[in-house]
Amino acid sequence: MHWSFDFKRIITHTDRVIAKAKAPDIIKLSWGEPAFPPSKKIREALLEAFNKGYTRYTPPAGLQELREAISDKLRRKNKIDTDPSEIIVTVGGTGALHLIFRLIAKGEVITIPNPGWFAYPSVIRVAEANLVWIDEKKYGYEALQKAREGLKRKGKELKAIVINSPSNPSGYIFSEKQLKEILDFAEDYSAYIISDEVYEDFILEGKHISIASIKKDCVFTVFSLSKTYALTGLRIGYIVAPDKQIAKELTILQLHTCVCPTSFAQYVALVCIRDRIEEEYISKWISVIKENIQYLDKKLKERGITWEKPKGGIYAWFPLPRIDSKKFAFELLEKKKVAVAVGADFGTKWDEYIRITTAVEPEIFREGIDRILQYYDEIQK
Amino acid sequence: MHWSFDFKRIITHTDRVIAKAKAPDIIKLSWGEPAFPPSKKIREALLEAFNKGYTRYTPPAGLQELREAISDKLRRKNKIDTDPSEIIVTVGGTGALHLIFRLIAKGEVITIPNPGWFAYPSVIRVAEANLVWIDEKKYGYEALQKAREGLKRKGKELKAIVINSPSNPSGYIFSEKQLKEILDFAEDYSAYIISDEVYEDFILEGKHISIASIKKDCVFTVFSLSKTYALTGLRIGYIVAPDKQIAKELTILQLHTCVCPTSFAQYVALVCIRDRIEEEYISKWISVIKENIQYLDKKLKERGITWEKPKGGIYAWFPLPRIDSKKFAFELLEKKKVAVAVGADFGTKWDEYIRITTAVEPEIFREGIDRILQYYDEIQK
Repeated sequence: MHWSFDFKRIITHTDRVIAKAKAPDIIKLSWGEPAFPPSKKIREALLEAFNKGYTRYTPPAGLQELREAISDKLRRKNKIDTDPSEIIVTVGGTGALHLIFRLIAKGEVITIPNPGWFAYPSVIRVAEANLVWIDEKKYGYEALQKAREGLKRKGKELKAIVINSPSNPSGYIFSEKQLKEILDFAEDYSAYIISDEVYEDFILEGKHISIASIKKDCVFTVFSLSKTYALTGLRIGYIVAPDKQIAKELTILQLHTCVCPTSFAQYVALVCIRDRIEEEYISKWISVIKENIQYLDKKLKERGITWEKPKGGIYAWFPLPRIDSKKFAFELLEKKKVAVAVGADFGTKWDEYIRITTAVEPEIFREGIDRILQYYDEIQK
Repeated sequence: MHWSFDFKRIITHTDRVIAKAKAPDIIKLSWGEPAFPPSKKIREALLEAFNKGYTRYTPPAGLQELREAISDKLRRKNKIDTDPSEIIVTVGGTGALHLIFRLIAKGEVITIPNPGWFAYPSVIRVAEANLVWIDEKKYGYEALQKAREGLKRKGKELKAIVINSPSNPSGYIFSEKQLKEILDFAEDYSAYIISDEVYEDFILEGKHISIASIKKDCVFTVFSLSKTYALTGLRIGYIVAPDKQIAKELTILQLHTCVCPTSFAQYVALVCIRDRIEEEYISKWISVIKENIQYLDKKLKERGITWEKPKGGIYAWFPLPRIDSKKFAFELLEKKKVAVAVGADFGTKWDEYIRITTAVEPEIFREGIDRILQYYDEIQK
């Protein structure tokens, strides 16, 4: 078409797999959401929201009582010392990223981890910024400096650094050393850090460190209720901004983009965070994820495939040697009725990789894995 | 700050009045929402949404069943013949306008009615487009042609024409003749029309015509559930796009801006539209609005102030001769505890105007009017 967006570059193979995988008989391992049911307490919270009159516009940064509950949670769980005036409640994690990218990086360049969430490039391009992939394990002072120099030569500025820990898709957890190096770089070269921590509650090994707990004044941290509460439809996320002034500017952008997130949904978020309802079930979910990973690991080993088990998050990310992931995903969907995310969408060297969701009932997960590997075995012959 | 947005130009006096008017003892006539309570059926719909499992991501254009119900409603009520694939469910009317402006008018110019909703300039600027005001009564072929020529001389393109009928703030209803002239102009000069019809259910005199019922292929129509259902917190609106391809592009933009509107809220919207729950109460609300307007009219006449009574919408828009609306609104808020919208924000010649909401219980409305006019009388001495 004749618009300013290049639509071919902002729609991925995985987007198309997800759009195609609608029939109820399809095993959906392509999705970025836990397949577990949400807590029954959500039902009560919705009722309460209506009864208490949460049916109207909220302040554009979100309900004051919600931002206070978030501030308490951040202090307790993330060791981030922040004031409600530095928090903006957004339309999910994507809504948060969109606002940040538009505010700080329009026309400039953002680095993202390789592999990294398949939608980062699209969200960045819709916000009219550009991107550079950097190997997630090498993400640190030296790699960033090298990327910056390359950009300088092209007259471009490295404006922001995205980190995603635990990572989607690999489940990688950034080490404290890495986080400190990234902070040092950001400080030395006036870059911002955007820390996407939407999988903070899914830790399988080691521990999660919020980078803003180390230093906060160049960091935007993004959280979401989608994964922790199995409520991707709630569309509630939040940003912890570097300071009050930047939070205000993000708020003005949100006001003129959508006014505010849904009031009912904000009230549900308040109940979830204030009452810590995830404590009821999160360790059970993590056991299921670990069990699923064990099953997959055994099956991959049987075929001599080596992979790295995730340390966090809700995905397994592994190679199927000699496949073309773009072709494989669409054929698998058609022939075996299993939907998976396409490795090629997650960076620059993942044509033989696929990503599957591990936050699924074991019975379904196993059936999905069996079909994937059965199809893989068939095409290897 | 050092960003690409000029924040001073995207925050209005009225935004600041609304932000200041928080205390419960303030009579809030500044708000763009009916003060009536929403139907109790919303409560049931929320419960049903949870029980039926509407807790997850929806398709980025919105639930299929909702878009089908909207398509039926459009055919029945607006005489717009459209397919669900041409409809995008958005995060309120503002979310709809933002997506459209970004898609079609980035860097180009949009005309808006004078007087016109105080947030249009901000939403347009955040979408990186520019604007020109045109007298709403003169909005037609000749005025548009003149505006276009003026822009041409500056090397700018008139890309889109916003109409808002019934109007916020004036309650003006565009005539069929005017609509046809605007369509002719759009056709002759390849412009798009964006028809904001969020007040379609508030008709006090005459009738509402959806411009897309006359011709559809250059028209984006924007609707919202906020006003009709007194659910500004629901954050559900929708766009009827000129065609399927444009709808698809808007959908991709929405996907990478916020994924989709809240799933619960979409289900509530489905129930509202499918069950036409506004039919229970809308004529009662309109009687109240008319009664409020009569009261105001009498009080203004007593002071020899002439004004034009609204033909639709939920506002009264009138001059208070010799005031400076910017100063008046803040002083009124402080001294009389009444919040009103600032005339100066609504276009180019309204410094002596204020806008107040008429969709308010008569007792409160009268008290508000009495305090406004009392203060006006005081400062005239």
